[in-house]
Amino acid sequence: MANKVLVRQEFKVVGTRPIRHDGTDKVTGRALYGGDFSLPGMLYGKVLRSPHAHARILSIDTSAAEALPGVRGVVTAKDLPRPEEGIADVGEGAVNLRFLSDNILASNKALYKGHAVAAVAAVDAHTAEAALALIKVDYQVLPAVVNVREAMKEGAPILHESLRTDAQGQKGTTPTNIASRIQFAKGTLEQGFAQADVVVEREFETATVHQGYIEPHNATGLWSSDGQVTIWCSTQGAFTVRDLVSQILRYPVSKIKVVPMEIGGGFGGKTVVYLEPLAALLSRKTGKPVKLVMTRTEVFEGTGPTPAASMKVKMGATREGKLTAAEASFAFEAGAYPGSAVGAGCMCAFAPYDIEHGKIDGYDVVVNKPKAAAYRAPGATQTGFAVESVVDELAEKLGLDPIAFRMKNSAREGTRRIDGPIFGVIGALDCLEAARASDHWSSRLEGPNRGRGVASGFWFNIGLQSSCTISVNADGTVNLVEGSADIGGTRASIAMQAAEVLCLRAEEVKPTVADTDSIGYTQVTGGSRTTFATGWAAYEAAHDVLRQMKERVAKIWEANPADVTYEEGVFGVKGDPKMQMAFRELAGKLNHTGGPIVGRATVDPKGQGGAFATHIADVEVDPETGKVKVLRYTTVQDAGKAVHPSYVEGQMQGGAVQGIGWALNEEYFMTPGGTMANTSFLDYRMPTTLDLPMIETVIVEVANPGHPFGVRGVGEVPIVPPPAALANAIRRAVGVRMTRLPMSPGAILKEMGTV
Amino acid sequence: MANKVLVRQEFKVVGTRPIRHDGTDKVTGRALYGGDFSLPGMLYGKVLRSPHAHARILSIDTSAAEALPGVRGVVTAKDLPRPEEGIADVGEGAVNLRFLSDNILASNKALYKGHAVAAVAAVDAHTAEAALALIKVDYQVLPAVVNVREAMKEGAPILHESLRTDAQGQKGTTPTNIASRIQFAKGTLEQGFAQADVVVEREFETATVHQGYIEPHNATGLWSSDGQVTIWCSTQGAFTVRDLVSQILRYPVSKIKVVPMEIGGGFGGKTVVYLEPLAALLSRKTGKPVKLVMTRTEVFEGTGPTPAASMKVKMGATREGKLTAAEASFAFEAGAYPGSAVGAGCMCAFAPYDIEHGKIDGYDVVVNKPKAAAYRAPGATQTGFAVESVVDELAEKLGLDPIAFRMKNSAREGTRRIDGPIFGVIGALDCLEAARASDHWSSRLEGPNRGRGVASGFWFNIGLQSSCTISVNADGTVNLVEGSADIGGTRASIAMQAAEVLCLRAEEVKPTVADTDSIGYTQVTGGSRTTFATGWAAYEAAHDVLRQMKERVAKIWEANPADVTYEEGVFGVKGDPKMQMAFRELAGKLNHTGGPIVGRATVDPKGQGGAFATHIADVEVDPETGKVKVLRYTTVQDAGKAVHPSYVEGQMQGGAVQGIGWALNEEYFMTPGGTMANTSFLDYRMPTTLDLPMIETVIVEVANPGHPFGVRGVGEVPIVPPPAALANAIRRAVGVRMTRLPMSPGAILKEMGTV
Repeated sequence: MANKVLVRQEFKVVGTRPIRHDGTDKVTGRALYGGDFSLPGMLYGKVLRSPHAHARILSIDTSAAEALPGVRGVVTAKDLPRPEEGIADVGEGAVNLRFLSDNILASNKALYKGHAVAAVAAVDAHTAEAALALIKVDYQVLPAVVNVREAMKEGAPILHESLRTDAQGQKGTTPTNIASRIQFAKGTLEQGFAQADVVVEREFETATVHQGYIEPHNATGLWSSDGQVTIWCSTQGAFTVRDLVSQILRYPVSKIKVVPMEIGGGFGGKTVVYLEPLAALLSRKTGKPVKLVMTRTEVFEGTGPTPAASMKVKMGATREGKLTAAEASFAFEAGAYPGSAVGAGCMCAFAPYDIEHGKIDGYDVVVNKPKAAAYRAPGATQTGFAVESVVDELAEKLGLDPIAFRMKNSAREGTRRIDGPIFGVIGALDCLEAARASDHWSSRLEGPNRGRGVASGFWFNIGLQSSCTISVNADGTVNLVEGSADIGGTRASIAMQAAEVLCLRAEEVKPTVADTDSIGYTQVTGGSRTTFATGWAAYEAAHDVLRQMKERVAKIWEANPADVTYEEGVFGVKGDPKMQMAFRELAGKLNHTGGPIVGRATVDPKGQGGAFATHIADVEVDPETGKVKVLRYTTVQDAGKAVHPSYVEGQMQGGAVQGIGWALNEEYFMTPGGTMANTSFLDYRMPTTLDLPMIETVIVEVANPGHPFGVRGVGEVPIVPPPAALANAIRRAVGVRMTRLPMSPGAILKEMGTV
Repeated sequence: MANKVLVRQEFKVVGTRPIRHDGTDKVTGRALYGGDFSLPGMLYGKVLRSPHAHARILSIDTSAAEALPGVRGVVTAKDLPRPEEGIADVGEGAVNLRFLSDNILASNKALYKGHAVAAVAAVDAHTAEAALALIKVDYQVLPAVVNVREAMKEGAPILHESLRTDAQGQKGTTPTNIASRIQFAKGTLEQGFAQADVVVEREFETATVHQGYIEPHNATGLWSSDGQVTIWCSTQGAFTVRDLVSQILRYPVSKIKVVPMEIGGGFGGKTVVYLEPLAALLSRKTGKPVKLVMTRTEVFEGTGPTPAASMKVKMGATREGKLTAAEASFAFEAGAYPGSAVGAGCMCAFAPYDIEHGKIDGYDVVVNKPKAAAYRAPGATQTGFAVESVVDELAEKLGLDPIAFRMKNSAREGTRRIDGPIFGVIGALDCLEAARASDHWSSRLEGPNRGRGVASGFWFNIGLQSSCTISVNADGTVNLVEGSADIGGTRASIAMQAAEVLCLRAEEVKPTVADTDSIGYTQVTGGSRTTFATGWAAYEAAHDVLRQMKERVAKIWEANPADVTYEEGVFGVKGDPKMQMAFRELAGKLNHTGGPIVGRATVDPKGQGGAFATHIADVEVDPETGKVKVLRYTTVQDAGKAVHPSYVEGQMQGGAVQGIGWALNEEYFMTPGGTMANTSFLDYRMPTTLDLPMIETVIVEVANPGHPFGVRGVGEVPIVPPPAALANAIRRAVGVRMTRLPMSPGAILKEMGTV
């Protein structure tokens, strides 16, 4: 039952489990989050939000609010530069910029309940709140549409006059809510289905769910009178905040400094900006630093959840169990502005399988809900739920073991995905094998209303730019500076890669997450890129240190730098075993032999390897209440190389638990008018430790040849399999096939015909 | 009368006068100093100080203080590791470490009034202060000695039993107050004096004076439960604080992070630690962050002023005006522990002159005053006052023009100093020439009781280690990270050197002074090294950026990197004039062509060039009151290359004004018992703008061949000439030769025989 790592120990540091560098600060409450931050003379900001899901804004009168004693400034969309102005792109760029800008402060229309309309800065939060009530907004309320299928119908209320994509994905003449259509195809679909002996076709729906990070969004802005802007905030990417604020305010990146505070969870939801441009604008207006912090209701209503989806999947297989064809149509709710993760969902949907003929259709559809944001393997959980349910039903119909069926059809090196790419070395089959070999799979599950389900999942992972610098301390330790926000233990996993190169212990590498002025450009922490790409930068920066240290040794010993060796923490000279100097000894001599040593690296690696996972779930369904109890849950996942297995396990467990939340509990309850009815953690029910068994983990390590230590990303894929694994388990427990998330007690009873 | 720069404009950015990057923050009060810093749950610390200048500490009872409600912790010397313990050196090292440690918290003896004896952390400053009164210290009061000559006498009260240096500088058997003796000699002194037609021998004294920075010392410490220590403080060198705290607490440098806040003046006085180890210790004891801020009285009584000195100088010259011999004995007050700047004073004393025969004796003597610290050209102002007074008297006796006499004997390239080094390219003669050619020198000074004086000065400047990283922003600007505290505009002067290399404007380089975890080792800002050495690091880091950008251009164009050129901000390829890409354009492409670019450099340059200055002062002495009015004052100084002439002028003016303060007003009035009687800025009289004329500046530029832009240090030398220049002017005004600083109204009247 213990967590298990299928790992070959090839390294000294990589693969071990040191205490994370920021651990004590975090568990003792010392770590400084955005909410802890304050500046002398700071004002407090509050945001006025639309009470309507869809309404034209006829006028905004802020005069009474501005006149309230203690109020220092009010901003509306009029304070934002228009996308057409200044340095913005023209054409598509300007449109996207307008969407970006309008989501910060609504200009002509409010497009969801909770849409920001104005913001106030005052001497305290209560005054700011009181001022909100004094802002008079004249709304013309419009009919709202809050469901993707409704939004795609003819005659649906239209959010944006500028969107004209028809159902074929062509630019039409009539406004629609379809922002874009994406299509992938491989082989000849008809031929594939013709070869099939069994075909299953089903429709699925998933709900709008939120990442549910503990820490609400916050931002403090300071616009100095020389035009330098500083923003302290909770974000997954300080440079992303810098880029977005720069675009929204049409202001040079070099005049914006973003200081990433500690982050209390993000899961993709903190890769965008909400309060940051407002904090900057209010500071510019008032001449003071301004701090804004959201309430939980604002987080639910005003920030990006994951898209709800409406999906149709059809798959065929031969009697022998060979998948022959797959077809899918995925329609995702982008929320108020274009940009759901439907593309990524399409890419991941059938990726675990080698299928000759396939076709995938994706629709990005706007509805009167908050603009969707990324949420762990964005899009893949939705499509994975649909595909893995159908795969399960096929296995069932064919009378095949669900793991064996998946293994028979597993993607492997050389398999071409329906969306195009050909796999390199992947661990899809290895995960299935490990799942089959697991204690969980071989254990017996008995008793009434109990069932075991299995499902696989895929996430492609990403690379992108990262920077790192490393400086050597006189005591033989090093300081490492990186630009990657640490949301899952990456200070440790990055420091460990540097330590491995330098033959140091993990705790001898001291990592710092720096602000945007103090480290090279580094992309957002997300997409499962950080341990991979920033880790690579650390690897290269460590080698840059070693190169310089070898040169120094050569100088001290009057040797040829090319002859200097470094092994097991000791510098030597080829052919002269007497010449030896430990890293620590040389570190202590640097200042007297030519100066300190700093290594640097910037990378943009392309060799990210995709990640696969297979989950096994045992459930018991209470036939009286419809409540699903998770009895046992095992996640098997290919980490490539688990740099710090504990944090890989943590990602696997956390992802699985979030997936279980999607599966069984979580959803935005929307009124027909478009108001979310459950905007607190009391009513929006996320699973807690009391609801769950220990999530068991099996780490598989199929080294990624595209990374020096074989690392793949691990953070995304564990959220993908749970909904299908649980749906498949419920099917086996009580005979019903759930096709809609969440599989709440009421939904299950309804499906069982009990109510 | 305007400020004048004798400068050949060879560069685009170096030599211009852009607005400093931190200017707006500083003039609008936005810049964050240590006093502005706070943390949640922070405690406030106060220091109990000895009321006696010399006393044995028999016992300390802190129990009543600890019992006071609101008090969270009390520390005494018992909480400091003993120098003999742990990782400390043995022998001399342990002795020095004990001195270092004892100055933070007195162990067996209090050695000056104001010596820290205990420190308290409490919930607020008032409670902490109240607690100090409850600490019972049982003192055995000992006789004090507060004057260097008294301290050297036989039978003087002895501060340290371990000091045994006799008057010959040998290790003796009887305890003395002489910590060390330093000696330099050149040629044969007797022969030199035998050649002389005129010999002048005089004794001089200078007072204890304080740097008088506006911002008092402050430090906030946080000792986390995982052993990581963070210190926010006002310092000239974050790495110096890290090193010293590491030594005092016997704690690894890598577990200490020092965050340099803005600094409100240092002038050498913030190159050491006082509160920093206490803040760390109190935080360790209480588990909370602890902040300490000194009062002005604490700054005067508890931190390092410049040493008072007792000096004898004898010089001889031929009838023709050729200096033949120089002999000096300098005794400096180190304060309570060894380490005055007498060595540097010896090195600078006769440096402006080429003298064949010389001998210099220096004595470092402990007295019951605060341990001396560096103060702008430490030691050189004292010895310069003595030497330049004697030089002036020789010129007077020989009937020679004081500038002509100095020019005749001026040091030049190839001159060997009495302390050994041979000068490279220097501007000693050039400064004298520029002074002679100045408007001031050629103007007439008429009227009774008026006189004009001239004096030269020297400071050797230093190099030492510095680090710098530079990252390129997508908008074609760069961010520069450095470890040098900015006390005089060095953000600008360092950024400008990077801008020059990169063909950017100064404002397109955005400098950040980082904490010790975030930048490579960088030595203290002091000794006039920062623009020289950290500027050099910036120069190298900029070249590292260019190298990588050229490689990128080569990659984009498929060209040979060696063929890529960079001129006037545009990359090109040799032999193909059509291939052109501006820096800004390439910067925007970096993320899509291989990733971001970061440059780094670490340096330890040895090519620092010495700095010379010649000052001219016109004074009028009120024969009734003895008050000296400075009518006109001109500073001429060799900057090598003035990177930012305004800040060079600022250094020249600021240094001159401080020197004028030493000359005319400033001194610690000590009671015989060793108490400073004037511990406020009301009673310790520093010159203000109302006391002074505009200080005129003439920048001479004799490029230093040891630096890429010819930079020398500029911050130190301007404090050296004023006391002698004013003494020489007073001599010409009213006929008296003042040999003791300050030349206060009372002292002048006494010398004039009026009182």
